[in-house]
Amino acid sequence: MNTRIYNARILTLDGETDVIQGEICIEGDTITYVGSGEDAPQALLWDCEIDAENNLILPGFKNAHTHSAMTFLRSFADDLPLLEWLNTRVFPMEAHLKPEHILWFSKLAIMEYLTSGITANFDMYFFPEQIAQASIETGFRTVMVSGLNNYGGSVEELEENYLKFNDYHDLISYQLGIHAEYTCSDDLMKSVAQLAYKHSAPVYMHLAETEQEVRECQERHDGLGPVKYFDSIGMFDYGGGGFHCVHLDEEDIEIFKAHDLYAVTNPASNLKLASGICHTADLLAADIPMAIGTDGPASNNCLDFFREMFLVTGLGKIREMDAAAVPAEAVLKMAAADGARAMGLHDCDCLAPGKKADLIMIDMKQPNMQPEHNIVKNLVYSGSKQNVKMTMVGGKVLYKDGKFDIGIDPEEVYAKANEMVRRDF
Amino acid sequence: MNTRIYNARILTLDGETDVIQGEICIEGDTITYVGSGEDAPQALLWDCEIDAENNLILPGFKNAHTHSAMTFLRSFADDLPLLEWLNTRVFPMEAHLKPEHILWFSKLAIMEYLTSGITANFDMYFFPEQIAQASIETGFRTVMVSGLNNYGGSVEELEENYLKFNDYHDLISYQLGIHAEYTCSDDLMKSVAQLAYKHSAPVYMHLAETEQEVRECQERHDGLGPVKYFDSIGMFDYGGGGFHCVHLDEEDIEIFKAHDLYAVTNPASNLKLASGICHTADLLAADIPMAIGTDGPASNNCLDFFREMFLVTGLGKIREMDAAAVPAEAVLKMAAADGARAMGLHDCDCLAPGKKADLIMIDMKQPNMQPEHNIVKNLVYSGSKQNVKMTMVGGKVLYKDGKFDIGIDPEEVYAKANEMVRRDF
Repeated sequence: MNTRIYNARILTLDGETDVIQGEICIEGDTITYVGSGEDAPQALLWDCEIDAENNLILPGFKNAHTHSAMTFLRSFADDLPLLEWLNTRVFPMEAHLKPEHILWFSKLAIMEYLTSGITANFDMYFFPEQIAQASIETGFRTVMVSGLNNYGGSVEELEENYLKFNDYHDLISYQLGIHAEYTCSDDLMKSVAQLAYKHSAPVYMHLAETEQEVRECQERHDGLGPVKYFDSIGMFDYGGGGFHCVHLDEEDIEIFKAHDLYAVTNPASNLKLASGICHTADLLAADIPMAIGTDGPASNNCLDFFREMFLVTGLGKIREMDAAAVPAEAVLKMAAADGARAMGLHDCDCLAPGKKADLIMIDMKQPNMQPEHNIVKNLVYSGSKQNVKMTMVGGKVLYKDGKFDIGIDPEEVYAKANEMVRRDF
Repeated sequence: MNTRIYNARILTLDGETDVIQGEICIEGDTITYVGSGEDAPQALLWDCEIDAENNLILPGFKNAHTHSAMTFLRSFADDLPLLEWLNTRVFPMEAHLKPEHILWFSKLAIMEYLTSGITANFDMYFFPEQIAQASIETGFRTVMVSGLNNYGGSVEELEENYLKFNDYHDLISYQLGIHAEYTCSDDLMKSVAQLAYKHSAPVYMHLAETEQEVRECQERHDGLGPVKYFDSIGMFDYGGGGFHCVHLDEEDIEIFKAHDLYAVTNPASNLKLASGICHTADLLAADIPMAIGTDGPASNNCLDFFREMFLVTGLGKIREMDAAAVPAEAVLKMAAADGARAMGLHDCDCLAPGKKADLIMIDMKQPNMQPEHNIVKNLVYSGSKQNVKMTMVGGKVLYKDGKFDIGIDPEEVYAKANEMVRRDF
């Protein structure tokens, strides 16, 4: 499948945030040309030519922390205190989850990702086989990360999954991870650190999400909060990163810097569960690479990267009480470029020859994108799902003009999801 | 024009937030029936019958504070400190505004309102004649409010506009207002209070938006902040309300209560300009009626009520560090019902016989609305512009399935807006 997208404005994110006029050529799942079109490869017999009608093409957004199949708990339990929410609603429901559920609820999440211009997710949830199946069947790109903890999984299983799913399918990869410090024994965490050493692999986990988590970790580990504790056992010797990263101190930031760790911020979830506001401006000032995640749909409740992008900048500004903090350009780089790098997708970060054709088209002919003083600011401050005209993953159009091309009728997914939540939970 | 909408789920907001199954009948601009359909009026010759396909119908959102025509400054100057933004970018540009600009930039804003399910706005800006013209020509409902201050307008002109535009057109009304305490002399404010007395009219203004505003008002007025100062001169003797209301103390809240004042919160703008976070939970606990506004598109930058609704609850929760604070049902009532009352539109607050047919249809067959555990939570926490399937004002469909019916080609509005910003500013 060879595709040419012409008559486009293109934000390559290959370096700066300038917009160029031109075209993109794609062979299979890979970009072969980005430029004005004058020096484009001689016309192949294109399978597909897409007139962008002067709309904007840019790399897709990377949802760098989520629990996709938690769509089954969307709007099931909101406006509750955190512990009541977790202990009386989330955990008891999750106990009923079976592999088949994960397949369908993940597909529902993938559909929502596509409507929001998200082209890859970093998914921590149960039943990796079905997570992978949902992505492969729909054509979506997923990096799985283990949520190993005291109550489920083993280091042996983790290694098995790591080896299996990194040699499984073009759209699938797998990273080492644990759920969090507060759900893992010291022995378990040390074993994962050894595994990371064995495979020279990065490790990811929920990290410094709440004050309580940091305080209780300090009590358990001679005054060390979770970042310092993980550092002390060598967990980050081959990099990795943390999800949430709300409550970091200066020493934590130094550890992030020393190990090139990624801080993945989850602003909507942190608001809705009242966890706190990430120190985004401080992290950016320290040159910590950052990414953005929606977290799971039980805690957000939606999977909307435009909401997240506005929150990253808006909360960054209010935290510093400085309207100049966390500018739009920095947010867009997190969302589309550094998000890819955070999850190990180094060939999905920008639009350039040799990179994967994971890209989106933004409808500029909508009132919220007009007038066109500054396209990046329009996108980050004003954009919405309504502007997503096309979402392409690996050279294949999965969503265009409100229609899905994912091998299944959307109505079937909705019907199945509602049937399952009524019958099984 | 008589319209019947059938096969609908209906959130009337007439009292509680229950969802009923049924139909709505409309004659002219007024609702004549809401119910199961069994006792509906005998079939008239309907001009229009709309199959809602089991989607959700509810009252439109009311944008209770905006400066619509500031679309011309969208993304013109972002990520700047507040004073630099105002003094070097906003005020110099506004000095070039002419009536023709207001007509076109207001139309652009109205289009965006329609995409977001907003059916009425409370608009404070220059050139009321052209604001009204934009609304009447497109079929949109606007309540204007004066932004009188030391640098423009007079009390005589205010009274003239008040009398003129409250007897002008079904879609147009006008409320007394001043810009803010910090832009008005004592004499001017006292004259407006007298005018309010003469007409038994409520008064509105920017109120307690920033800490600096409150502090400087206290210095000018013997320790009185703006709410207490306005109270002391009788400004609120016939009600009214404030825009922003970020920095209120307990005594201020008592004054709101005593005069049945409306607090209009503008969360996106307050984040982006780093003004602070509204004490929404405290205001609700004190039974202060609240409404929501986008503020102008120069400071937001978009006019998206789904973003605002999520921010009202999310920021309310984080301010209290309580995930149970400011629940979804309260936010929806602010957005659709109390918003109408705040701006004097007492016949646009809910769906019931005798009320205006200002309503929207929400597309439930989208992944972000599934599964259907709780429709109100889905709407407030998960909804987006992409879910707005239809927006009706005064019984007339102005937006449906992504197409506008507002008497002008959208492309012409975009072209004119871009031409004007390049040529005149």
